[in-house]
Amino acid sequence: MNNLNTLPAAEQPICALATGTGGAIAIIRASGGGVIDIIDKIFRPAGGVPLSETPNQTLRFGTIEDGEGKSLDEALVAVFRAPHSYTGEDSIELSLHASSYIIHETLNRLCELGCRIAEPGEFTKRAFLNGKLDLSQAEAVADLIASSSRVAHDVAFSQMRGNFSTELQQLCSNLQELSALLELELDFDEYETMEFANRSTLISLINQAIARIAQLIKSYEIGAMLKQGIPVAIVGKTNVGKSTLLNRLLREERAIVSNTHGTTRDTIEDTIDIHGVTFRFIDTAGIRHTNDEVERIGIQRTMNAIERARIVLYVYDEEPSAQDYDEIRSKAKGAEILYIRNKIDLQPLPAENCANPNAAEEAQVGSLQHPLRISAKTDEDIASVEEAIYKAVHLSEISENEIIVTSARHRDALIRTRESLQRVSQSLQANVTADLIAEDLRLAIAQLSEITGRSITPETTLQHIFSHFCVGK
Amino acid sequence: MNNLNTLPAAEQPICALATGTGGAIAIIRASGGGVIDIIDKIFRPAGGVPLSETPNQTLRFGTIEDGEGKSLDEALVAVFRAPHSYTGEDSIELSLHASSYIIHETLNRLCELGCRIAEPGEFTKRAFLNGKLDLSQAEAVADLIASSSRVAHDVAFSQMRGNFSTELQQLCSNLQELSALLELELDFDEYETMEFANRSTLISLINQAIARIAQLIKSYEIGAMLKQGIPVAIVGKTNVGKSTLLNRLLREERAIVSNTHGTTRDTIEDTIDIHGVTFRFIDTAGIRHTNDEVERIGIQRTMNAIERARIVLYVYDEEPSAQDYDEIRSKAKGAEILYIRNKIDLQPLPAENCANPNAAEEAQVGSLQHPLRISAKTDEDIASVEEAIYKAVHLSEISENEIIVTSARHRDALIRTRESLQRVSQSLQANVTADLIAEDLRLAIAQLSEITGRSITPETTLQHIFSHFCVGK
Repeated sequence: MNNLNTLPAAEQPICALATGTGGAIAIIRASGGGVIDIIDKIFRPAGGVPLSETPNQTLRFGTIEDGEGKSLDEALVAVFRAPHSYTGEDSIELSLHASSYIIHETLNRLCELGCRIAEPGEFTKRAFLNGKLDLSQAEAVADLIASSSRVAHDVAFSQMRGNFSTELQQLCSNLQELSALLELELDFDEYETMEFANRSTLISLINQAIARIAQLIKSYEIGAMLKQGIPVAIVGKTNVGKSTLLNRLLREERAIVSNTHGTTRDTIEDTIDIHGVTFRFIDTAGIRHTNDEVERIGIQRTMNAIERARIVLYVYDEEPSAQDYDEIRSKAKGAEILYIRNKIDLQPLPAENCANPNAAEEAQVGSLQHPLRISAKTDEDIASVEEAIYKAVHLSEISENEIIVTSARHRDALIRTRESLQRVSQSLQANVTADLIAEDLRLAIAQLSEITGRSITPETTLQHIFSHFCVGK
Repeated sequence: MNNLNTLPAAEQPICALATGTGGAIAIIRASGGGVIDIIDKIFRPAGGVPLSETPNQTLRFGTIEDGEGKSLDEALVAVFRAPHSYTGEDSIELSLHASSYIIHETLNRLCELGCRIAEPGEFTKRAFLNGKLDLSQAEAVADLIASSSRVAHDVAFSQMRGNFSTELQQLCSNLQELSALLELELDFDEYETMEFANRSTLISLINQAIARIAQLIKSYEIGAMLKQGIPVAIVGKTNVGKSTLLNRLLREERAIVSNTHGTTRDTIEDTIDIHGVTFRFIDTAGIRHTNDEVERIGIQRTMNAIERARIVLYVYDEEPSAQDYDEIRSKAKGAEILYIRNKIDLQPLPAENCANPNAAEEAQVGSLQHPLRISAKTDEDIASVEEAIYKAVHLSEISENEIIVTSARHRDALIRTRESLQRVSQSLQANVTADLIAEDLRLAIAQLSEITGRSITPETTLQHIFSHFCVGK
């Protein structure tokens, strides 16, 4: 406590505003060595009992004072002592009136007394360094805070609670057992030529691990989109009602609607929630040939939006030409295209089984996909569009408790792990000697461990050996 | 607790998000009858001890669950029992991850269980109804939260802590003593003709009260501006460097600066803090004759800005004409005009005592006010402009602990109180009978009491009579 600046970096007291802009209450968090004594210097408790004598997880009411002893605010102070805090260090939470002046002056005063302003995520970083969370859990905290839909929340919460970590631990544990078998073979190799581990069993186990990792890698395809919202492009010719449809879906007048062709020149992004999943809608400029330079840029952006979209809503009122279909299908590679026949209030189609004056249109569209017939203007059938959008991402195929990878960092580590394990599998099949295989297996374990940040030490491997394979040696 | 909807409105449990947008932590507050039992239904404590058995002002860690028992978040819950809470009722504060989904679902769940979303200020309204704060203190809470400068903070904090209330109580108490003297005179009037109270003493006391109330009313002139920022208009001809000066004062590139005359067409508002006081700067379009319709509207806005300003910075590079001076002075009624001679780097003026080639200019401006000579472009002398601005509001004349009225409602009540007291004073001088005077005095007390919302009952007045003027009757 005497010289705070000489403390190791991880223990130096840090402080930061933990709440958002506006509101009635602001929370300032502080954590690190000596932080309770620091707050005691600026806090005059109403009951007279200093924080240093306040029990853990208890609130005290009092006054926060500036450097001259002038009152800054009335505050509630929560006391958390190591290791029973979020960071695992001594921590304080100050509940203040959310005035920018009070927040600024309080943080200033804390910095005068030896705290420094925390870096982004530093409280959670300390929680990781102090073993309260692993890296994948720490990353999930950020995802949880950012989550605005049920599915994004569920994935992040599950990861924060350690479900992904448990899965990874299981995988690591399996690989360590394999490694232990190989190490054992290595150990005895000098004396004997026998194979301790049955190689075909090892190959089968490695391939199981590879298959599971492949599942996790594949889950990222949907995971990345669940986090940010699944991109949906609404495209079609000018004046077919794309903006009207967007407004219906958003249930607000987000896009400017007019009867003038080419009203929407820029792309507009907004999100809606369908069954707990966020979809990010991109309304786009209508596609047509134009000499207007600004509109032409808008159309180029539309083309780019189609390429990024996971789902394309192709809206039309009059039957598009074969060339139009070809154009949209060639652009929307990898996306699911939903064909939407709008303005049915103006030209109602007969019931499907009746004689159909638009038979040519029906036949052609039907051959691509049965089009949704709607009237965006009269709000008819908007729910059917929502259902079609939701079904297009095939979320129902994901089981309730399935682990979904949402981080590019995790996916990258999984891909590298799979590569190493594939080499292990090949080497086992090629009867390569155990020492070379063991090297790749250790690499795979290290790569997998990058996700949680909990390194698997040689001791951990040794422990496995002695716990599972004690041969009386 | 069995039927929450039958509770009187003030006791129905309410809930609301108390923190702002964004951030890492969100606080949901709930208050009212049965609220601790309600939270117990959605909270699974990590230690197993329910909130109903948790001591006051204690934090519990656990999991918040939705209606199906699915985990929504890990949370810290603070327990406050009546009367030891902000509202004076049983209250709960939930500290959650600041996810819009978590906040929305938690509030939804609380509403399912019998809470309703609080109206704006309803927690503070309940604090008032439960006698934790008076009305002027409650209003100060809102001002404190909105305060972004030292002075605005100090005024609001002082009011929240009850300094204005104490002053008003003192005034009320004085008026009640006067009232008591008159009531006594009234009481005995039937039997005797003697005057109990010396009327000249009463007149003197009433006039003292009137004088104090007049001070408070006058303080509103500065009080209203301290809260919102003191409006400063920067005006002058085109291209004299008004926007450059604003940028220097704001220490950022807020206004677009170019050498083209008429660059600034719209008024730009931004605030700076000088010695803890917020000044709201209005950069304006340069004044010149123009046929450009958009620019003409800008110049009209400039004229309006000058009329609203408390301080006008009149910037020029070449000596303005007598007509220019007349125009600015006629527009800037009630405002303090600071004359600023810009671009001294281009045409440096000689030292004051030397022979002065610009003697004509110097003489004319000097006769109005000694101009500040600056170079906004080279940052020279910007500090002197700041000092001049600060001095122009004469804040130094306000003593440290002076009560400053910042609310139009309070000012209105004070003005009405003064009117009633002036009638009392006139009636006393005109030897009107005590009963008529007592009526106006009671009205004045009631009007003054509107500020704190604590009504002065006849009993309070009676108490005064018997405590101070017991005559053995």
